[in-house]
Amino acid sequence: MSTTIGSAVTGSTVTGSADIPRTMRASVLVAKGRIRVEERPVPVPADDEVLIQVASVGVCGSDVHYYREGRIGDFVVDAPLVLGHEVSGRVVAVGAAVPDTRIGERVAIEPQRPCRVCAQCAAGRYNLCPHMEFYATPPVDGAFQEYVTIQAPFAHPVPDTLTDDVAALLEPLSVGIWASRKAEVAPGSRVLIAGAGPIGVIAAQSAKAFGASEVIVSDPVAERRAMAERYGATSTLDPMTDSVADLGVDAFIDCSGATPAVRSGITAVRGAGTVVLVGMGADDVPLPIPVIQNRELKVTGVFRYTDTWPVAAQLAAAGQVDLGSLVTGRFDLDHAEDALNADLTPGSLKTVVYL
Amino acid sequence: MSTTIGSAVTGSTVTGSADIPRTMRASVLVAKGRIRVEERPVPVPADDEVLIQVASVGVCGSDVHYYREGRIGDFVVDAPLVLGHEVSGRVVAVGAAVPDTRIGERVAIEPQRPCRVCAQCAAGRYNLCPHMEFYATPPVDGAFQEYVTIQAPFAHPVPDTLTDDVAALLEPLSVGIWASRKAEVAPGSRVLIAGAGPIGVIAAQSAKAFGASEVIVSDPVAERRAMAERYGATSTLDPMTDSVADLGVDAFIDCSGATPAVRSGITAVRGAGTVVLVGMGADDVPLPIPVIQNRELKVTGVFRYTDTWPVAAQLAAAGQVDLGSLVTGRFDLDHAEDALNADLTPGSLKTVVYL
Amino acid sequence: MSTTIGSAVTGSTVTGSADIPRTMRASVLVAKGRIRVEERPVPVPADDEVLIQVASVGVCGSDVHYYREGRIGDFVVDAPLVLGHEVSGRVVAVGAAVPDTRIGERVAIEPQRPCRVCAQCAAGRYNLCPHMEFYATPPVDGAFQEYVTIQAPFAHPVPDTLTDDVAALLEPLSVGIWASRKAEVAPGSRVLIAGAGPIGVIAAQSAKAFGASEVIVSDPVAERRAMAERYGATSTLDPMTDSVADLGVDAFIDCSGATPAVRSGITAVRGAGTVVLVGMGADDVPLPIPVIQNRELKVTGVFRYTDTWPVAAQLAAAGQVDLGSLVTGRFDLDHAEDALNADLTPGSLKTVVYL
Amino acid sequence: MSTTIGSAVTGSTVTGSADIPRTMRASVLVAKGRIRVEERPVPVPADDEVLIQVASVGVCGSDVHYYREGRIGDFVVDAPLVLGHEVSGRVVAVGAAVPDTRIGERVAIEPQRPCRVCAQCAAGRYNLCPHMEFYATPPVDGAFQEYVTIQAPFAHPVPDTLTDDVAALLEPLSVGIWASRKAEVAPGSRVLIAGAGPIGVIAAQSAKAFGASEVIVSDPVAERRAMAERYGATSTLDPMTDSVADLGVDAFIDCSGATPAVRSGITAVRGAGTVVLVGMGADDVPLPIPVIQNRELKVTGVFRYTDTWPVAAQLAAAGQVDLGSLVTGRFDLDHAEDALNADLTPGSLKTVVYL
Repeated sequence: MSTTIGSAVTGSTVTGSADIPRTMRASVLVAKGRIRVEERPVPVPADDEVLIQVASVGVCGSDVHYYREGRIGDFVVDAPLVLGHEVSGRVVAVGAAVPDTRIGERVAIEPQRPCRVCAQCAAGRYNLCPHMEFYATPPVDGAFQEYVTIQAPFAHPVPDTLTDDVAALLEPLSVGIWASRKAEVAPGSRVLIAGAGPIGVIAAQSAKAFGASEVIVSDPVAERRAMAERYGATSTLDPMTDSVADLGVDAFIDCSGATPAVRSGITAVRGAGTVVLVGMGADDVPLPIPVIQNRELKVTGVFRYTDTWPVAAQLAAAGQVDLGSLVTGRFDLDHAEDALNADLTPGSLKTVVYL
Repeated sequence: MSTTIGSAVTGSTVTGSADIPRTMRASVLVAKGRIRVEERPVPVPADDEVLIQVASVGVCGSDVHYYREGRIGDFVVDAPLVLGHEVSGRVVAVGAAVPDTRIGERVAIEPQRPCRVCAQCAAGRYNLCPHMEFYATPPVDGAFQEYVTIQAPFAHPVPDTLTDDVAALLEPLSVGIWASRKAEVAPGSRVLIAGAGPIGVIAAQSAKAFGASEVIVSDPVAERRAMAERYGATSTLDPMTDSVADLGVDAFIDCSGATPAVRSGITAVRGAGTVVLVGMGADDVPLPIPVIQNRELKVTGVFRYTDTWPVAAQLAAAGQVDLGSLVTGRFDLDHAEDALNADLTPGSLKTVVYL
Repeated sequence: MSTTIGSAVTGSTVTGSADIPRTMRASVLVAKGRIRVEERPVPVPADDEVLIQVASVGVCGSDVHYYREGRIGDFVVDAPLVLGHEVSGRVVAVGAAVPDTRIGERVAIEPQRPCRVCAQCAAGRYNLCPHMEFYATPPVDGAFQEYVTIQAPFAHPVPDTLTDDVAALLEPLSVGIWASRKAEVAPGSRVLIAGAGPIGVIAAQSAKAFGASEVIVSDPVAERRAMAERYGATSTLDPMTDSVADLGVDAFIDCSGATPAVRSGITAVRGAGTVVLVGMGADDVPLPIPVIQNRELKVTGVFRYTDTWPVAAQLAAAGQVDLGSLVTGRFDLDHAEDALNADLTPGSLKTVVYL
Repeated sequence: MSTTIGSAVTGSTVTGSADIPRTMRASVLVAKGRIRVEERPVPVPADDEVLIQVASVGVCGSDVHYYREGRIGDFVVDAPLVLGHEVSGRVVAVGAAVPDTRIGERVAIEPQRPCRVCAQCAAGRYNLCPHMEFYATPPVDGAFQEYVTIQAPFAHPVPDTLTDDVAALLEPLSVGIWASRKAEVAPGSRVLIAGAGPIGVIAAQSAKAFGASEVIVSDPVAERRAMAERYGATSTLDPMTDSVADLGVDAFIDCSGATPAVRSGITAVRGAGTVVLVGMGADDVPLPIPVIQNRELKVTGVFRYTDTWPVAAQLAAAGQVDLGSLVTGRFDLDHAEDALNADLTPGSLKTVVYL
């Protein structure tokens, strides 16, 4: 049922299915705004890796940003890059150090490769590893292609009750979970979330799953507020007309990246409460320092996540979050560019590329 | 040796020395920039309070600010106000619920009166009590007067080895201790402190006492850097010429309130490190949000302190901090105004009013 | 609509309903095993208290223990004592410092009176206050009587959707919540609970409400295991036949007080996991120290609770816990003794005295 | 100045000094109570390792235990074993992935090899890694030999001001530091330590370095109490005559392993204080559960350490701990057996084998 591939390439042993091809199709960002499907070699898993046949890949705002702008901050796309880092699939081969019982397993990919040795890794903060390689971040390719590799522990098994799309969306759910952890959301918490885009809606669901009794979502767009109310929000408000200054919430999670939202959200938090900045926006945001001082607010940001997939899978499997119905568009690999442009369509929330 | 005073006023019993006068002298800020010594009634301690004959009162930057500007933010001096909240003295009378064994005790005053019942108090964060009454903060009088009252638990005993001046300066030391706690300073920590004024120097000493292996103090004035090197700093730098961006410190404590110092200090902190904003400056400071996010920095501020006096007294008594030699000027009550202006003299660091 | 009562007694002002009687009926434990209904004066609330007309009082194992044994450890019933500390009711009068808008409010009572001033209280651990007065703990009377007083902040408002019985049972729910907090239960946690009595069942529900993905309840009695499976447990096991040693759970919460359960439960916990001892049993329990050391387990116990009622009310109101159907017996005040003996009836779980 | 060794053996490249011999002398525990010096091959560092020429090796109680008893708990010496895990030396060769600039560096060895991939490692608790390989723990050899290998990040550089003996003793200091961290020792803490053996004395010094204002050491032997008073203890007591029950300390650190000391020490701790079990003794120790519950004590143990060497080196270099004068005996490799028996000599505290 299984055979050895790739040993010619690496000198080590890879065990996998006999029917893995030598080449695969990949959707490549060849230049700013230009996507092309190419034939590429199927990657060979290293000793500690698995090879995964990709099933679904969610489109993230960062993918769209690389596609349209060719860069995010200091990360510049100066060579062809495969986008996509919200990934599910099935293990089809394993490296020499990985038990072949994993072959056939349905998995969701945690798309990062920390060094596991530096001070940050040793301290349990591998998301802050300065040597990190992350999918779809130059120069590391992502998952808009038929096969990908990842270290075995980061190919997280998913229960059969989760669809491929939902399994892929455990990645953005991880962001929401990580934000709730940083925000110290617990049973009874009152939480304000700014921004009802995909991450805001998922953050709202996460906060509910962490036991928040009140999740107030702020967004200037009525349709997005309605969306938030279907997923997690106990109430919504329009920042154009409603003030948040007296809410006295335990935590404020910004998923908007909008300077006015960040500034006003901070004033909504009670003494010793938390502020977690998730959304990306201006490089410099004027913050009300006396408010942070006089209330001793704890302000922080999130950078990806550590140790969230098992929880994410459990919350999704238990129905505590609803990821499936967030998907408003599905495209095959030949139409990955359409997937990247789907956010221009009104009502679009989350788009998936399937393979 | 003791007698009952004040019972006519309150209906309750006060026990104290027979020689407590009915009136006392107080140095009063009667209007912006105008200090006058007045004769006022000696306060009568409530059941849970002690009456303290004041010995020494440190001059804080906030006293100077009220004197010169007549306000600090929303706190406006619109009625005569007694300044001074860094206070030591001797217990001379006790309220009905306080054991009279405390009479005669030398104490340092924690100059705050929380409600002890609200959610913040119940959670152990009494410094954030919304009902707080704090010395020398309108409309609550401070300690530039011969006698003051405070709830008994906040009159902290001090060992005989501490002078009155040092006992008074346990208050600013408390700010330093609180900042080190918020900054999570521990043995081996590397700490950057911006600003070598009184609080910066005391924060540096606190960080050393908390075990920091490296305390780097930044200040543009050479004399102040020299001062910092005498007290706690393991090295200093001039922000006009030296960059801090690559320091990778565990914690940054701003005691300058200067916008450029806050902004650059944040870039000096390693992933998952802490930023504690102590200094008061601009209401809005543009912060580099991507740095906070990508490093998941923990940014907070301090507002006074909780539970710091016992530790402060121990550190001072054990010689782990040196407060006494910070005092560069001493004035009697008639010259409290000179004390408030002493900061205009070059080389002045900390001024004390004695009674 | 309201009038002043009790002022003759205290010299202070009490505001309340005109129809509050001078005396009330109380069910008193006059000696070990002897309960008698007596006529007693209605208590008068102090300035910071409210007077509550009692609606429901849950029977706790400690009530039964005092009734049968006349003591719990060092606490000896050497004078008549009113039992009952799981209490709901309605505010009918307020002390001078409490706004009379509270009159008429339905409340659940947090049955403790900490000093609010000592080091433990100041640190936010008021449950550990050495000066604590607690309902139904000698010599402080409890709530098997028509009226009780409590400090206003500890009369917690409850939503109308909660019945009187459920409101009373927010007290044992508070124990469960406090145990989950100590056990650091979070989304995805795997939790072992020993003992499927009332507290074990409530602890299981609490753990679920805190997001536990797996709640394994151990009890030797099949009926009790079945009960646990109806409330919170994701699975159960029989400690007589099933080993727990290899479970590798994140947390073990003992609600049995049984030495074998405590000992085996500790071996069920993964490295750096938590052990929370809730159940009362032997004074000395031999613990496997090398297991605690080699896994660096965090072992602690719970003593009542701090700051749990608001969360408890929210969990109950949101349907995240089911307290109402735990009630297997209801008795009026004249039959409080029957309530205390109800646990001798097979299938009894939780008994309530109503007024 | 350097050449390549070992490549014949591993197929990978090792860079090191030309004068590294092919074989070395090793002191081997060949059976319970029998030590023999053997000639063995010099180990070859793997890609991520360094080769260290050993300078000093401290003798630990566990070495003595393996020598005398042939086992510690489940770890049985059923094949020849090299003892010794408190090690300093000099880097003489590096694996292919380690920069050769490290050659010549003086280092202290953190003698553990975690997998870096499992859940415990990923969470920053690598000391709890179930796949750990630890020096001098069957079947992994230790350092009573001329050369050893370790992963590069665990060969910690030491300043020139530290002697080889002191550098070796950073290992037991790490135990003390780890205990102080678990005990949450901070400036102002009051700490009780039971047992004035090497670990007790080092734990006392660590607690002082963490800022403890009071370190009370309990030991029945007067000479050991005197020793403790020279190193860190602010006072001592004799458990045969002095009760600790009313001390109300913030933390109790047991370094005795003696059941009575553990039991009484627990009663010495204030509410919400910590108990850290370091000493090894009986497998089952009857603990006073009601004390743990009523005070909500936090009881835990230590198992080795994570991330302590940099701090240990700093504390030693800064003179905050004194390790050098703890050494009461030094033996060469031919007399390693004498070193293992040195504890039988009165007044012996810490013994070192030098190479």
